[in-house]
Amino acid sequence: MRATLLYAAGDVRVEDVADPGIHRSTDAVVRIVLSCVCGSDLWPYKSAPPTDSPRHMGHEFLGVVEETGADVRTLKPGDLVVAPFVYSDNTCAYCREGLQTSCVHGGSWGVDGVDGGQGQAARVPYADGTLVALPVGEDSGLLPDLLTLSDVLCTGYHAARTAGVRRGDSVTVVGDGAVGLAAVISARLLGAEQIVLMGRHTARTDLGRDFGATDVVAERGEEGIARVKELTGGEGSHKVLECVGLEDAIRQSFGIVRDGGTISRVGAPQFTDVPFGFGDFLRNITLTGGVAPARAYIEELMPHILDGSIRPGRVFDRTVGLEDVADGYRAMNDREALKVLVRP
Amino acid sequence: MRATLLYAAGDVRVEDVADPGIHRSTDAVVRIVLSCVCGSDLWPYKSAPPTDSPRHMGHEFLGVVEETGADVRTLKPGDLVVAPFVYSDNTCAYCREGLQTSCVHGGSWGVDGVDGGQGQAARVPYADGTLVALPVGEDSGLLPDLLTLSDVLCTGYHAARTAGVRRGDSVTVVGDGAVGLAAVISARLLGAEQIVLMGRHTARTDLGRDFGATDVVAERGEEGIARVKELTGGEGSHKVLECVGLEDAIRQSFGIVRDGGTISRVGAPQFTDVPFGFGDFLRNITLTGGVAPARAYIEELMPHILDGSIRPGRVFDRTVGLEDVADGYRAMNDREALKVLVRP
Repeated sequence: MRATLLYAAGDVRVEDVADPGIHRSTDAVVRIVLSCVCGSDLWPYKSAPPTDSPRHMGHEFLGVVEETGADVRTLKPGDLVVAPFVYSDNTCAYCREGLQTSCVHGGSWGVDGVDGGQGQAARVPYADGTLVALPVGEDSGLLPDLLTLSDVLCTGYHAARTAGVRRGDSVTVVGDGAVGLAAVISARLLGAEQIVLMGRHTARTDLGRDFGATDVVAERGEEGIARVKELTGGEGSHKVLECVGLEDAIRQSFGIVRDGGTISRVGAPQFTDVPFGFGDFLRNITLTGGVAPARAYIEELMPHILDGSIRPGRVFDRTVGLEDVADGYRAMNDREALKVLVRP
Repeated sequence: MRATLLYAAGDVRVEDVADPGIHRSTDAVVRIVLSCVCGSDLWPYKSAPPTDSPRHMGHEFLGVVEETGADVRTLKPGDLVVAPFVYSDNTCAYCREGLQTSCVHGGSWGVDGVDGGQGQAARVPYADGTLVALPVGEDSGLLPDLLTLSDVLCTGYHAARTAGVRRGDSVTVVGDGAVGLAAVISARLLGAEQIVLMGRHTARTDLGRDFGATDVVAERGEEGIARVKELTGGEGSHKVLECVGLEDAIRQSFGIVRDGGTISRVGAPQFTDVPFGFGDFLRNITLTGGVAPARAYIEELMPHILDGSIRPGRVFDRTVGLEDVADGYRAMNDREALKVLVRP
């Protein structure tokens, strides 16, 4: 089959790789119908050193079950399914608590002999635990929306949930990328009254307004902080959803969170130390979040997509065929595209 | 009146200062019956530069109301009251949320013309908001226990509450000082099943066992982390209550917290950056806590003291008269005493 490989920063190739098959009795093989490029794929795209053992890319996909191992109970060939961005058994103590990212049997796509998501097919470990069936056909217009259950919508939702967003809150979302926009959708779902979106790309912040942002702040740093304070009666926001992962963004988040408030970060941190000393200790600030256990949220969020009340698939503003995936990476990296769909 | 002044590191003196009086109609004057020395008093005791404008010390006291301003409604002369370690109006938005440490009218004892707590008397701003009446007499044997409502018990309780300790949890308390021991009491009150106390002072950890610690770990650093892992089935503790404030203690806390778990810190951080990068992001660790809004917890905790079910006053292992308060500081700083009562 054909799959996406990263040989070095900026060097994405589509090549022939081994066809997936059933290795263990709990595996399934899925023919991929729709995939996409993630903001987090851009970190290695920007920085990976050259290698002869290329990385298999992609961790967001939906597709049709083609084959199942002998111990797969809940799925059968022909089922349309979505895969969260890590696989998990969904039965261990962590999974039962909704922390499938810490599953004792879990792991990542594209490593340890498991396929990536940007290809024609994938072997799925712990298929019963990992995959969630979709109650629509392969030709449904909702597929791009449902694909966001794989990562981006659940990541935004994880920010809002771990921050404890509730009815009446003032929430600020830092970052107008696809995750930030998903965080806006999520804050609204949870009843936030004020949703300030911090971002400077008008097309994105306009989409953010459609998704429920009540205010947009284009300024950054001290100016941005002052503007959010102004919009929140001088106090700052109860909850700040940090959807970037850079040190400036976390500093900004501490600047705009209200005393007693919570920052939840879901942007993978590109730094090791958090500036969180005595001053913010005196203000009783909480820092939470982390990598999203998407699997925990799929059933909860899917109905909102099926009934049309949220349309997270609008974050996809470009579609490429698998053979053109390199151009999709380039377009996202150049900020020409917000998020790119890949059709194998 | 006589009061405790700090002129420089190690230089504590008791001197004559102006008698307190009513400055504003919401003030009260309290004759102090019992006070104490706090672990946080030792930070300036260790490090304050010499000054001609000495710091007025002490922020934990209980006493008898002597005089009230015209607008004080809930208290009258003769009432025995306890004061939390900051004053607050208890009516602003922050106070109503239980975050009296961020009160818009609040402030600290011993600064801005407000008396410290280690003296014969104190003017109390916002007396209705700040003070809580005690339903016992001045001769009650419970006074040392009730004095812990001023700070140390409420600070330990804040750690347990903000960590979200609940029935069945595994909790590790880092630090066997008075706050750590109060955190043990608090974790037990909230139903923790396993309470691991990390500390190496046998007299203190023995008291910790009396308070409810199920295990004691004397080792520190990597060894201490390994020991806690061993005691928690290899996973670490759901909740870690960091009651020290030093960087080593917070590093240790990240080492022993279970995936998806929470560290609450109530030891005033003596560092600016927290080592909280990608690895602990992947584990979905939350860092919460902060300075304790003692006022929020006094009514909730007092019944447990009045019915004898908790005896937090056992953290006091030495008593000095006001004139000898310098020796109390020395004894605590030399770790001869755990926590020192001061009788004016």
